[in-house]
Amino acid sequence: MSQSIAYLGPAGTYSEAAALAYVNQQSDSVTRECSLLPYPTIAQTLRAVASGEVSLAVVPVENSIEGSVAISLDSIWQLDRLQIQQALVLPIAHALLSPTGDLQQIQTVYSHPQALGQCQQWLEKSLPGVKLIATNSTTEAVKQLDRDRSGGAIASMRAAELYQVPILAYPIGDRPDNCTRFWVVSLEPSVSGTHTSLAFSLPKNVPGALVKPLQVFAERGINMSRIESRPTKRSLGEYLFFIDIEADAEDPLVHSALDELTTCTETLKIFGRYQVVSIKY
Amino acid sequence: MSQSIAYLGPAGTYSEAAALAYVNQQSDSVTRECSLLPYPTIAQTLRAVASGEVSLAVVPVENSIEGSVAISLDSIWQLDRLQIQQALVLPIAHALLSPTGDLQQIQTVYSHPQALGQCQQWLEKSLPGVKLIATNSTTEAVKQLDRDRSGGAIASMRAAELYQVPILAYPIGDRPDNCTRFWVVSLEPSVSGTHTSLAFSLPKNVPGALVKPLQVFAERGINMSRIESRPTKRSLGEYLFFIDIEADAEDPLVHSALDELTTCTETLKIFGRYQVVSIKY
Repeated sequence: MSQSIAYLGPAGTYSEAAALAYVNQQSDSVTRECSLLPYPTIAQTLRAVASGEVSLAVVPVENSIEGSVAISLDSIWQLDRLQIQQALVLPIAHALLSPTGDLQQIQTVYSHPQALGQCQQWLEKSLPGVKLIATNSTTEAVKQLDRDRSGGAIASMRAAELYQVPILAYPIGDRPDNCTRFWVVSLEPSVSGTHTSLAFSLPKNVPGALVKPLQVFAERGINMSRIESRPTKRSLGEYLFFIDIEADAEDPLVHSALDELTTCTETLKIFGRYQVVSIKY
Repeated sequence: MSQSIAYLGPAGTYSEAAALAYVNQQSDSVTRECSLLPYPTIAQTLRAVASGEVSLAVVPVENSIEGSVAISLDSIWQLDRLQIQQALVLPIAHALLSPTGDLQQIQTVYSHPQALGQCQQWLEKSLPGVKLIATNSTTEAVKQLDRDRSGGAIASMRAAELYQVPILAYPIGDRPDNCTRFWVVSLEPSVSGTHTSLAFSLPKNVPGALVKPLQVFAERGINMSRIESRPTKRSLGEYLFFIDIEADAEDPLVHSALDELTTCTETLKIFGRYQVVSIKY
């Protein structure tokens, strides 16, 4: 069957790199049938899979420096039926691209806010006083250079190649171990996993209400690899909690934990069981 | 003594509104002596108070829709010695400003990413297909209109007044109860409080390590009004936890909780005790 995969485009983004890495793991016959479809925003990427327009979507959920990608978590909660098939951890290495060929001439640097944040120290040291402009993706930053020939863009080596822009510096990230975790999601439940992700809201005005759900896992020796709070958007001080556990939702022990969790949470959503794959270049 | 207060400028931002609201609560003699100093970024605003350049800084920490302001939390953790004097909750009501005077002519809308996020539904409905460009502050968005006369900016009514730009729509926020919490910080410990904020890292690879610190509060009936995780930036999966409790750090019960907390955390930082003030317009 032919598969279409949505990602935050255009071509050259780290999301495309993650989608390509996912495809490369599949068998040859699957790979030949895959088409990658760029979408302008993360919300639209996820809506495309929720509506059945594409079969899979690859979205960033967390960077080791900048933290959570809030829109991915918020959209997955709202869209409700999405199931994680795989988590992909991708190393992130940024380059500074510019048509000028000369670092001293650069007056403005464009990039996605997370990439600007990840190169903050390098920018302060190498391009002090330069103007920073946020773009929707690293590739969109490269496209700004068509208009602003004395500008620079922070993007991947692949983007430099694709759009034929000279690389002035690489790598420019402040931390060499920078990586981003992506989720591959679809409407189908996945068939196996070593990790499970879920989120819940809590009953209102109960002091210490968060302790109980965390105890449910701790008592069973189930390790939480992550907890993240997001506002419910109803009022300041009301949160959703996103939790990743290092265990399979179908394991009987985890099953009993999830059952107990329904008794001490308001709304509970399970986003699926999946493997974590680390990509090396 | 004359006080200087740093905020994320330029004049017209919601940070300035919060700084003005803080000043207005003080006695008349203090108010007369206050000077408000705009800084280009939140990190620089906080560094100004840490270095003693100014006596106070006012920074946003959380919005009811968009969630935490990561750079504020990260900077307060890194700068180490800052103490919260007060939390201010400010209602946020956005306006669409444009020199065109006509909604139909607007092709690009500028604003801070949080403001763009807070007006997303209104933008999709009233200005479908419009290009969105992120700026460092809502005021900077208004300044872009000098260059782009067919553009629009999402900013406060005060910014419209200050920079003399016509208002085309108000209010345009997707939720009427939108508000932002700010912290007023200085190098001095505060003298009283009803709330306490702290953050800690956890010992590595201990399953359920987060349960113990949360139990410390739950066992004593101390309510946590917020928990937020941020990456340590060392490696994916290592977090700092920021916690707000509804109790005074100098209360003996809280004191014993904080003592016990040092035994089950790696690094623990207390950011001070303070009152929460809600501003009404």
